[in-house]
Amino acid sequence: MTTKAYGAHAADLPLGPLNITRRAPGAEDVQIEIAYCGICHSDLHQVRSEWAGTLYPCVPGHEIVGRVSAVGSRVTGFAAGDLVGVGCLVDSCQHCAECADGLENYCDHAVGTYNGPTPDAPGHTLGGYSERIVVHQRFVLRIRHPEAQLAAVAPLLCAGITTYSPLRHWRVGPGHKVGVVGIGGLGHMGVKLAHALGAHVVAFTTSEGKREAAKALGANEVVVSKNAGEMAAHVKSFDFILNTVAAAHDLDPFFVLLKRDGAMALVGAPPTPHTGPLAFNFIMKRRSLAGSLIGGLPETQEMLDFCAQHGIVADIELIRAGQINAAYERMLAGDVKYRFVIDAGSFGA
Amino acid sequence: MTTKAYGAHAADLPLGPLNITRRAPGAEDVQIEIAYCGICHSDLHQVRSEWAGTLYPCVPGHEIVGRVSAVGSRVTGFAAGDLVGVGCLVDSCQHCAECADGLENYCDHAVGTYNGPTPDAPGHTLGGYSERIVVHQRFVLRIRHPEAQLAAVAPLLCAGITTYSPLRHWRVGPGHKVGVVGIGGLGHMGVKLAHALGAHVVAFTTSEGKREAAKALGANEVVVSKNAGEMAAHVKSFDFILNTVAAAHDLDPFFVLLKRDGAMALVGAPPTPHTGPLAFNFIMKRRSLAGSLIGGLPETQEMLDFCAQHGIVADIELIRAGQINAAYERMLAGDVKYRFVIDAGSFGA
Repeated sequence: MTTKAYGAHAADLPLGPLNITRRAPGAEDVQIEIAYCGICHSDLHQVRSEWAGTLYPCVPGHEIVGRVSAVGSRVTGFAAGDLVGVGCLVDSCQHCAECADGLENYCDHAVGTYNGPTPDAPGHTLGGYSERIVVHQRFVLRIRHPEAQLAAVAPLLCAGITTYSPLRHWRVGPGHKVGVVGIGGLGHMGVKLAHALGAHVVAFTTSEGKREAAKALGANEVVVSKNAGEMAAHVKSFDFILNTVAAAHDLDPFFVLLKRDGAMALVGAPPTPHTGPLAFNFIMKRRSLAGSLIGGLPETQEMLDFCAQHGIVADIELIRAGQINAAYERMLAGDVKYRFVIDAGSFGA
Repeated sequence: MTTKAYGAHAADLPLGPLNITRRAPGAEDVQIEIAYCGICHSDLHQVRSEWAGTLYPCVPGHEIVGRVSAVGSRVTGFAAGDLVGVGCLVDSCQHCAECADGLENYCDHAVGTYNGPTPDAPGHTLGGYSERIVVHQRFVLRIRHPEAQLAAVAPLLCAGITTYSPLRHWRVGPGHKVGVVGIGGLGHMGVKLAHALGAHVVAFTTSEGKREAAKALGANEVVVSKNAGEMAAHVKSFDFILNTVAAAHDLDPFFVLLKRDGAMALVGAPPTPHTGPLAFNFIMKRRSLAGSLIGGLPETQEMLDFCAQHGIVADIELIRAGQINAAYERMLAGDVKYRFVIDAGSFGA
């Protein structure tokens, strides 16, 4: 089925309108009319081929919400008219240990929502900057938020689960002191979710100007990480730190804020290595440094339900397809609070 | 009480005989006639002031075994004649969260067996290269091995607990695939202990010549880490890796051998930073890098009892005091299988 989309034909070309083809729904497939799609920083990296291996045409987008328009004969959980979401994955091997544990995100054969291998034309997946998508039912999520919030739900499918999964894995809850480093698309969700999970939340930002905004998101305290004195006041006090910064930086100033047995989880993957932490800072307090990659499908559904229950959505700026290239530039300049979301009705306009 | 010892008067001087004074046992003290003391690589670092802050005269030694000769009035667990050990710590604050949890090793005010603060002359602690030591009862361990094994028990007090504690903390046991990187003083204990805990043990060495020796210690497999093909065969397969190497090296080749949720613990602290791991290798499999520092007193007793029960001791080369300087040079050259232990009877000879 011909579907209007937005994408790029090469790394050095801007995104523009194009037509793509979606497969007819198979027995296990759900066909979705996309309402909104969030813009993730990964979209920009990938469409510009800043990570290796981008295939063109590239249609980014993995923060997808919309309404079911058709289902295959063996689809059990969804029917036409349902509000649904699709995140970073549209397939996996479905039989490895990771898939058996509902951790499809760690499957060696997980298929990204765009730029992943597929038998469909053109041979790689095309993402959510489009009017329609067809996805195996295992990778479709139910949305229980009120429809009026739908645009602001979209970023939960990547930014939400990427921060929720480590917060849950490291058992963040009441009585915990939790840091969130970097208050952008991921970090603003991290603050909201850690707060809703009952933790005492400290937001770390490099920018004095973000203090009030971070408090408004739910941070109990805000630390400007450039101020050594402010940092020193928190040494050896954190149970967990969620580090959302995707640029290489010195990890030690944050790592030493962990108390004994504390952990810091990285969710950003900079192209160049971070500095530190020093072995000494691991050993002296049995601290851990870890990473976390989005989340599995069951946990993504749990996150969406948790957010619906707690009234949590992303803070967004809604744009039209024609504004995508400008939005990328503003994202690079840090000029967004906190996520751009595209109105999918504008792909055909 | 005047006590014969071996130590150095400056960083650039060799160790030689000297007389030190031990305090009369206080109410909570245990006085121990030292039988043997192991030589740890830390001894060499510290006596040569390769780490900051060595105080002179420096009498190293924190792998101490011997026999109780006197106890204070409030000592309950020990009596004259008991076989006992003293490890890396002789005091701590005894009231912080770490001490309350029996993790005196992570107490901010833990006092090392040598070069730590003490009201005793000369103002810093003097270690086990001596005939006698007086230690608060909390920091004295009971030895249940046969007396004939006593010399080979000494290294358990540091090398044993330093490897046992992380193996237990990361719950190594039957069904686990565990790597031990570096087959020296620490690593040879790591292999023995992981084997006794029921894990499938893979020893990593840079030296082709250590294959058979590592198997004799209990390794199920041995990988020469310079052989990329051998390493590749183990990618994404380890539950836990104990990294005992104290020299800075590239962590990524080992880190990628961990499977999802696997952890690598560092127990060596090189003066310069390690390379890696890359953020990507943390994130893609939710791997953790951690550190571990010796162990608390209750766990050290547990380790000694576990070793007595399983017939585990260190592989040692027994030397006399006059051989210490030569032993340091051989240790630097990697020419020891696997730990030097000093016969304390030779300090007065």
